[in-house]
Amino acid sequence: MSATRRYTLTISCPDRSGIIAAVTGFIAQHGGFIVEASYHTEQDAQRFFMRQEIRADSLPFDAGEFRRRFTPLAREFDMAWQLADSAIKKRLVVLVSRQDHCLNDLLHRWRSGELLVDIPCVISNHEDLRSFVEWHGIPFIHVDMQTGKAAAFDHIAALFELHRGDCMVLARFMQILPPALCQRFPGRIINIHHSFLPSFVGAKPYHQAYQRGVKLIGATCHYVTDELDAGPIIEQDTVRIDHGDTVDDLVRYGRDIERTVLSRGLRYHAEDRVLVCGNKTIVFR
Amino acid sequence: MSATRRYTLTISCPDRSGIIAAVTGFIAQHGGFIVEASYHTEQDAQRFFMRQEIRADSLPFDAGEFRRRFTPLAREFDMAWQLADSAIKKRLVVLVSRQDHCLNDLLHRWRSGELLVDIPCVISNHEDLRSFVEWHGIPFIHVDMQTGKAAAFDHIAALFELHRGDCMVLARFMQILPPALCQRFPGRIINIHHSFLPSFVGAKPYHQAYQRGVKLIGATCHYVTDELDAGPIIEQDTVRIDHGDTVDDLVRYGRDIERTVLSRGLRYHAEDRVLVCGNKTIVFR
Amino acid sequence: MSATRRYTLTISCPDRSGIIAAVTGFIAQHGGFIVEASYHTEQDAQRFFMRQEIRADSLPFDAGEFRRRFTPLAREFDMAWQLADSAIKKRLVVLVSRQDHCLNDLLHRWRSGELLVDIPCVISNHEDLRSFVEWHGIPFIHVDMQTGKAAAFDHIAALFELHRGDCMVLARFMQILPPALCQRFPGRIINIHHSFLPSFVGAKPYHQAYQRGVKLIGATCHYVTDELDAGPIIEQDTVRIDHGDTVDDLVRYGRDIERTVLSRGLRYHAEDRVLVCGNKTIVFR
Amino acid sequence: MSATRRYTLTISCPDRSGIIAAVTGFIAQHGGFIVEASYHTEQDAQRFFMRQEIRADSLPFDAGEFRRRFTPLAREFDMAWQLADSAIKKRLVVLVSRQDHCLNDLLHRWRSGELLVDIPCVISNHEDLRSFVEWHGIPFIHVDMQTGKAAAFDHIAALFELHRGDCMVLARFMQILPPALCQRFPGRIINIHHSFLPSFVGAKPYHQAYQRGVKLIGATCHYVTDELDAGPIIEQDTVRIDHGDTVDDLVRYGRDIERTVLSRGLRYHAEDRVLVCGNKTIVFR
Repeated sequence: MSATRRYTLTISCPDRSGIIAAVTGFIAQHGGFIVEASYHTEQDAQRFFMRQEIRADSLPFDAGEFRRRFTPLAREFDMAWQLADSAIKKRLVVLVSRQDHCLNDLLHRWRSGELLVDIPCVISNHEDLRSFVEWHGIPFIHVDMQTGKAAAFDHIAALFELHRGDCMVLARFMQILPPALCQRFPGRIINIHHSFLPSFVGAKPYHQAYQRGVKLIGATCHYVTDELDAGPIIEQDTVRIDHGDTVDDLVRYGRDIERTVLSRGLRYHAEDRVLVCGNKTIVFR
Repeated sequence: MSATRRYTLTISCPDRSGIIAAVTGFIAQHGGFIVEASYHTEQDAQRFFMRQEIRADSLPFDAGEFRRRFTPLAREFDMAWQLADSAIKKRLVVLVSRQDHCLNDLLHRWRSGELLVDIPCVISNHEDLRSFVEWHGIPFIHVDMQTGKAAAFDHIAALFELHRGDCMVLARFMQILPPALCQRFPGRIINIHHSFLPSFVGAKPYHQAYQRGVKLIGATCHYVTDELDAGPIIEQDTVRIDHGDTVDDLVRYGRDIERTVLSRGLRYHAEDRVLVCGNKTIVFR
Repeated sequence: MSATRRYTLTISCPDRSGIIAAVTGFIAQHGGFIVEASYHTEQDAQRFFMRQEIRADSLPFDAGEFRRRFTPLAREFDMAWQLADSAIKKRLVVLVSRQDHCLNDLLHRWRSGELLVDIPCVISNHEDLRSFVEWHGIPFIHVDMQTGKAAAFDHIAALFELHRGDCMVLARFMQILPPALCQRFPGRIINIHHSFLPSFVGAKPYHQAYQRGVKLIGATCHYVTDELDAGPIIEQDTVRIDHGDTVDDLVRYGRDIERTVLSRGLRYHAEDRVLVCGNKTIVFR
Repeated sequence: MSATRRYTLTISCPDRSGIIAAVTGFIAQHGGFIVEASYHTEQDAQRFFMRQEIRADSLPFDAGEFRRRFTPLAREFDMAWQLADSAIKKRLVVLVSRQDHCLNDLLHRWRSGELLVDIPCVISNHEDLRSFVEWHGIPFIHVDMQTGKAAAFDHIAALFELHRGDCMVLARFMQILPPALCQRFPGRIINIHHSFLPSFVGAKPYHQAYQRGVKLIGATCHYVTDELDAGPIIEQDTVRIDHGDTVDDLVRYGRDIERTVLSRGLRYHAEDRVLVCGNKTIVFR
């Protein structure tokens, strides 16, 4: 994604002919210059998905006006849609525990300008990573999980709303979110699970993988739903291991694959490349 | 690519706004149902590329009529374009020498219906593979290279035209084509080179790779031009090796990567997914 | 594996110090030239595994004499061991159904001399692949599964023994072997399963993968035990897919990964590179 | 590599029979417990390479005594050898410019205890990364390259020796070292080059890759010699790109592959897993 300001229009609607023509016709009619365009039909659901990036300076109006003028067309095709403005960065609230490999990677991508988001705060149930987070000039908030989980999760939800979070990132948070919290922010909580789902759901997946004797291990970035490790998958990857690798080696290889997979998933999400259809995702890379 | 008959429209033209709208508008106006749509702007060249797959049964006319009606619009945008009909298979003339791993793979994909092409004949400078080719019911033609290369290549060119070949596939042919032959069929000769180009151009690339001590080897499927191993690259891949691997091991690993890369390249070509821009390709996968 | 005749000594025994010294001392004492040596300690089981390839011509005696002389040392260390002679090829009995992508690959590797095994016969529950198998000069035996599975499997077991099979290869056989048959030939039946186990056990794994929305699919080569798709894994691999891929596309990608994974697993097995420890394998590549 | 103290014995010598027996016999004679053992014969050079990890607490003497007692045997076989003690960490002097993705990764692996080395200082020709390095408690030394390169490189060499560096790491240093400096520390300077060597030597490899239209890009970790980007390769990897990726995208993908490849190469080096043979490396992973 370049530095030029862009509007990103994402649409999902029942499939029929003429959708692309109608949408691109609307854009062309106002002189809009399309920078990137992607389409997909989900056969089982008979739904059509599209994503258009349009150069903001090629249009004679702003995002608000775009939305107003586009509404009748959207209604005609029964679209679920949104228009994102690249000048308004998404706000990611990051939750961590003690392990910092995903956080370290994420903050590096943020401070180098590769990941174009705002990070209003980092929340943790431990104090360990305070100094590292604060060195970045980002507020670090400790939420104690020992003195009652329910209250702690209420606190986290309140902090997320207080900081106007668009997305909650579980960067190896190691705590299972209560179902009510998951249901409250659908499609807005992203987790990195340290296995190639659906294999090895739940705790200690590297130990499970070691016991089963698999020849590759993986990681999965997914939206969190109220069913553990079962939400829509955004991104996955695997890495080869062999019989000589101990559980500690698996954990070490795993860290590399976890941060890579999480960072890709977050970038796709931040750039409005992920559309959800039932329990699956369309990722317009 | 499914079994439904489709027209595939591929276009390249100078970049400007409104192209997608004009083309998809034309299609929608005739009730055309777009099955797959891909777009790309080549920044350096300021050229726009697109590919549309349209269900043939959704249009009220045939390919010939489509071409006639589309011509004015194509002129307006200064398009280079073509419309392929999935009912008319591309004709691949395959050239081999003695090694059969690419041929074996290619003929399997052909007889299983995975690679939707016709193979009017296989040409070789050796007799070794006659029985295998003929078992498939495909004519096998031996062209002797010993009694004069120039005459042999003239013979090959004549056979290619006699069999109305759309594409000449060098499936480990091990002979360097004369420049005149390359120039005569631009974008219509596909080679598999057994290295990750631009590394290890020319003869014995696995020996070169072994001597250099690289940690991965690769293969490259590319269009043949009059400069050796320098034509537009369609597909590449690599595979990990280590210090324990001999040149023979590299050759063995290489066979796997060669057939995979060639088969992908041929599929992309056969499905009109490859557009050439200068010395680069756009591959709409 | 080169053409020079070799003895391959594979050993498994309780772990302690001095094992390597004792074994390599024995070999050195007779002037044996070690070509390849691999070691592994399985921590949980406290067992030691080793594999030595020795040039046959460097020893003053044959395999029989080697075995006799080595026996006391093997007893001292409580070894499970065997000595394979590269001049005596393993005999693979191949079982197929209608799909031939694994068979096609396997027979190519066999006829090109890459896979150094004998294939005394191919057994199938369909007639479809007779002509292709017989073109290779390999007997093709049709076993009818319609008229009673129990009798059919008895017939298969009898054929396996009649042809003195060392290993039964289920090259997409699509039939579940009865537990008694699995137990009768432990470590001697190899299957290719078309998923990345332990995900998607059982029928139609590509459909399962499609429904779950995973971003990579895989294949698994494993020894067959009486628990379905749960035996020791020899080799696995994965390939990336995306939302645009249909189940048919998954099946197509899957074919490539299945044949690759099966061929690697068979090579490891044929070269005595696989040692089993409980439900895991040590693969000395 | 676990936390238990270990001695790592690495050996290179002319190939002959009996080497493994002699070395493992020596170890066994003193009760040494071998944790990991690897062997390789380099055919062209007719040289044998081996690496043994031995538990320090299984031996009745220390590293100094081991070396003294092993010397006669080493002479007999004409060995080049060394014995490393895991309790004595290697000292890595890191050179950087302005880009911090490799440094960020390296320092994270160091502070998390994954990369078991000491980093006595970080040297840079820019001030940009001072705060980040100093947050880690590591001295940051700015060496001005503007006021004379020769003097600057003399300064760097002096700093390297002053800090008793074992290895100089060019973590995207972006400056070509003078040949004399390279020759002074053979096998002790490690560079990460941002291409899949031998393709795209020298400046701006991502631009070169973009122009050539390759379908994968890579990175190479290698020992620095006086010939630019031509030293022995320790590790490489590649990542897939496509026509939609700009040079900026290549740079972004490249950062991920660079840090991964460098970190692997450094770990292999730090754990004495890399042995050099001519212009190639043996890497006992």
